[in-house]
Amino acid sequence: MSAEIMRALQPDQQRLLQAINDLANIVEPDTPGWTRRFPSGAYLRGREWLRTRMQNAGLSTRIDAAGNLLAERAGSADLPPILIGSHTDTVLGGGRYDGILGVLGAIEVAQCLDEAGVTLRHPLIVADFLAEEANDYGISCVGSRALAGNFKPEWLDRTLNGLTLADAIRAVGGTPEALGTPLASKGAVAACLELHIEQGPVLDQRGKLLAAVNGIVGIQRGTLVLQGQPDHAGTTPMELRRDALATAAVIISTLEALCRDEPQAVGTVGRLEVSPNQSNVIPGTVTLTAEIRSLDAEILEHTWQALWEAATAAAQQRGVALELLALTSTPPALAERWLVDLVHQVCRRLDDGAIVLPSGAGHDSSQLAQLAPTAMIFVPSIGGRSHCPEEATTPEHLVLGVAALAHAVVAVDQALDAEGHGQ
Amino acid sequence: MSAEIMRALQPDQQRLLQAINDLANIVEPDTPGWTRRFPSGAYLRGREWLRTRMQNAGLSTRIDAAGNLLAERAGSADLPPILIGSHTDTVLGGGRYDGILGVLGAIEVAQCLDEAGVTLRHPLIVADFLAEEANDYGISCVGSRALAGNFKPEWLDRTLNGLTLADAIRAVGGTPEALGTPLASKGAVAACLELHIEQGPVLDQRGKLLAAVNGIVGIQRGTLVLQGQPDHAGTTPMELRRDALATAAVIISTLEALCRDEPQAVGTVGRLEVSPNQSNVIPGTVTLTAEIRSLDAEILEHTWQALWEAATAAAQQRGVALELLALTSTPPALAERWLVDLVHQVCRRLDDGAIVLPSGAGHDSSQLAQLAPTAMIFVPSIGGRSHCPEEATTPEHLVLGVAALAHAVVAVDQALDAEGHGQ
Repeated sequence: MSAEIMRALQPDQQRLLQAINDLANIVEPDTPGWTRRFPSGAYLRGREWLRTRMQNAGLSTRIDAAGNLLAERAGSADLPPILIGSHTDTVLGGGRYDGILGVLGAIEVAQCLDEAGVTLRHPLIVADFLAEEANDYGISCVGSRALAGNFKPEWLDRTLNGLTLADAIRAVGGTPEALGTPLASKGAVAACLELHIEQGPVLDQRGKLLAAVNGIVGIQRGTLVLQGQPDHAGTTPMELRRDALATAAVIISTLEALCRDEPQAVGTVGRLEVSPNQSNVIPGTVTLTAEIRSLDAEILEHTWQALWEAATAAAQQRGVALELLALTSTPPALAERWLVDLVHQVCRRLDDGAIVLPSGAGHDSSQLAQLAPTAMIFVPSIGGRSHCPEEATTPEHLVLGVAALAHAVVAVDQALDAEGHGQ
Repeated sequence: MSAEIMRALQPDQQRLLQAINDLANIVEPDTPGWTRRFPSGAYLRGREWLRTRMQNAGLSTRIDAAGNLLAERAGSADLPPILIGSHTDTVLGGGRYDGILGVLGAIEVAQCLDEAGVTLRHPLIVADFLAEEANDYGISCVGSRALAGNFKPEWLDRTLNGLTLADAIRAVGGTPEALGTPLASKGAVAACLELHIEQGPVLDQRGKLLAAVNGIVGIQRGTLVLQGQPDHAGTTPMELRRDALATAAVIISTLEALCRDEPQAVGTVGRLEVSPNQSNVIPGTVTLTAEIRSLDAEILEHTWQALWEAATAAAQQRGVALELLALTSTPPALAERWLVDLVHQVCRRLDDGAIVLPSGAGHDSSQLAQLAPTAMIFVPSIGGRSHCPEEATTPEHLVLGVAALAHAVVAVDQALDAEGHGQ
C-alpha cells in the first residue's frame, strides 16, 4: 500500500460520531441504556435509517434471504467481494458501540475510499448481519449463521409473542423459505473483516489502541447439578453432612486455579442457585453453570476434564451426587495466519504498540470464518465495560479503528491472489 | 428413686400415639406436611384441643400473660413448681413431633404419675409455650422469652396480615400489655425439663436411644456482602477479574475446613445469592449468610475470627469489597452440671448406651435456663430429618422418651433442696 493512499484515507470523525449518535436515538421505549433488539420496531426503524445512510454513501443496497442488509461498492475486476461489517441489534440495556461501530465504520470506510479516489480490485460489501446478539428465540448470529449454512430450518417455527422466527425474518425483508442451505458457498466471498470494540479490559489496561484478532475462543460450558441433603445446620455434625454448596465451592475454586495457571484460558462460574437457600439449612441442591474459553481446543478439553475430575472427587467425598445437565461445546474459530499478520502490520502502522489478541466473546466473524479468510480489529473499551449503558470508546479510538479497517481493506484487496489466497 | 416407683411409671403408648395423631389432624388447609403456625386458626384450634386434653388428664389449666398454656398438678410441699413442656406450633411443612412430643409427653407423665400413685413434693406444671418456631413476626420462642423477661414490648406492634403481635397474643388468651417484665422471677420455678426429638442424626447413626442434653449451642451468624465487578466472562483475563463468587467459594471452603478441624463446632453457609447470575457474566455481587454453632463461647468467637480473616484476605486478593451486613450472636446456654448428670443417670437406667449431647437447634429451654436449672432429653430422629413431613421417631422411642422424662421428674423432685439446688 502506497504512503499516498495511506495519507489520503482519512475517516471523517464528525460524520462517524453523528451516525453513531443518530442510530443511538432509535431505541425501544421503556428500556434501559440503548436497547434495540431483534425483532423490535426500533430494530426495524434502525435498519430503515441505516439503509438510507448506506444509499447516501453511494452504495447500492439489498437484503438477502437471511435478512442481512448488504450495501455494495463496485470493484475493478471480476472477483468475489470483500465483506466488512457487523450488526446493529443490541442486548437489553446495551450500549452504543457493540456491533454498531463495525457497521457504521464500514460505511465510513466506503466513503473515505471514495474521497481518497481509491478503486479496489474486489467489490466491497458493507453488511449489517441480522440479529447477532442472543435473542429470545434462543439463536445468536442469525444472519451470519445462515450465510455460512449453519441455520437450521426447524428454528423458523420458534415463536416469540406470537411471531415466528420466519415471520420476523420476513418482516426485515428476508426469505425464510430459502434458508437451510448456505447462502454463500466457499469462494463466493474473498475475505471478511470486522471492526469491533474489544468488550474487555486488555487494550485499555495496557494502554494499547488497536489489536488484530487471531481468532474467537471456543467455549466449553456445562450445567452441573449437585444433589446433597438439606439437613438442619445446627444438629448435623460435619462428618454426616452432604453439603451441596461446600462441594460447589471446591468446583469454583478449582476452576479459578486451573485458569490462573493456564494463560490461554479463562473460566467462570457465573450462575449458581442454592436450594432451599435458608441460613439454618445445609444446602441440599446447587445448580451451577461453569464455562471455559480458550483459542486452543486441546486446552479447552483438558481443562474441562481436570475440572470434572475435581468435581467428581469433591462430590464423592461429601456424599453428594453430581450430574452434568447440559454441555455445549463451541470450537475455537482461528483466523488464518497470513491475514492476522497482515492486519497486525496495518494496525502497527497506526499504533506502534498494536497487539494480537483472541476474542473472548462470540461474533459474526466466527460464522464468516467458515466461508472465507476472516479477521477482526479491536479498539479499546473504556474500563472493559460492554453490554451495559456505560459501554464507551473515545472518539479518537473509534476513528483510529475505522482508519485501521480502511487500511486493512486496501491491504487485503492487494494481497489476495486470484484463488483467494493471501500473498 | 425406688425400684418400685420406676417399675410403676409406665407411659401408655396407645394413649400417647392417639394424642399425637389427634393433634396432627388439626392443620392449616392447603399447606404441606403438618403445618400449624402461630397465629393461624389451626394453631388456635390445636390449643383448644390441648386444653381439653390437659383437663381430661386431671390438670388445672390457665393461660399466662404471654399466652403460654399452663396445666398444673399439685405438689405436697410449699415449693416452686417443676416446669415440663415444649411447644405445639410447627414450621411450614413441618412434622408431627417437633415440640409436640414435649407437650403431649408431659401430659402423659402427669397421668402416669397419677396412675403410679406418685405424689411429688413440687407442683408440676405442663407447659405449651407460645410460638417457639421462627414466625413471620420475626420472633421465635415468644412465650418462653416473655417468661424469662427477654421479650421487648416494641415487638407487640409488628403486624402480619393486619394483625399486630399484641392482637395475636390476645387471641390466644394472653395479656400483651403485661409483657416487658419477666413473668417469673428467678426462684419462682424450681427446675425445667424438656423432652424433644433430636432433629439431628447422631442418636440414629450411633444406635443410641436417649441423650441427656448438656446445653444449647450458641450461634454466631453473619450476612456478608461481596462486591466485585460484573465483567464479561469471555473478555476479562483472570488477573483483571473481581469475581465475587470465587471469593465466596474461599469463604465456604474455609468455614467447612475450620469446623471439620474443631469437633465442638459446626459451620454452614446455607444462603447465597449471586448477581447478575448469568452464565457469561463474572459474578459482581454475592450475598451469603454464614453461621457457626458451638456450646463453647470461645470456640464460637475464635472460629468466627478465623473465618473473617480468611474472608478479608480472599476479598483483598481479588479486589472485592467485603461488608458485614448483619451479625447476631446468641450465646451458648449451658445446663447445670448436676442436673445433666442426674438426667444422664436416669437415661442410662432406661438405655445403657444413653449419651450426653449438646443441642444444635434452639429451644424454649435456652430461655428457661435463665429462670431455673434446665435440661433436655432427646430421642432419635429417623435419618436425622426434622422440619419436614418425613420427620419421624419410632413409637418405642417416643414412649421411652416419655418414661425418661417421668423418671427425671421424680429424680429432680427428690434431688432439689429447699434453696432449689441439686443435691
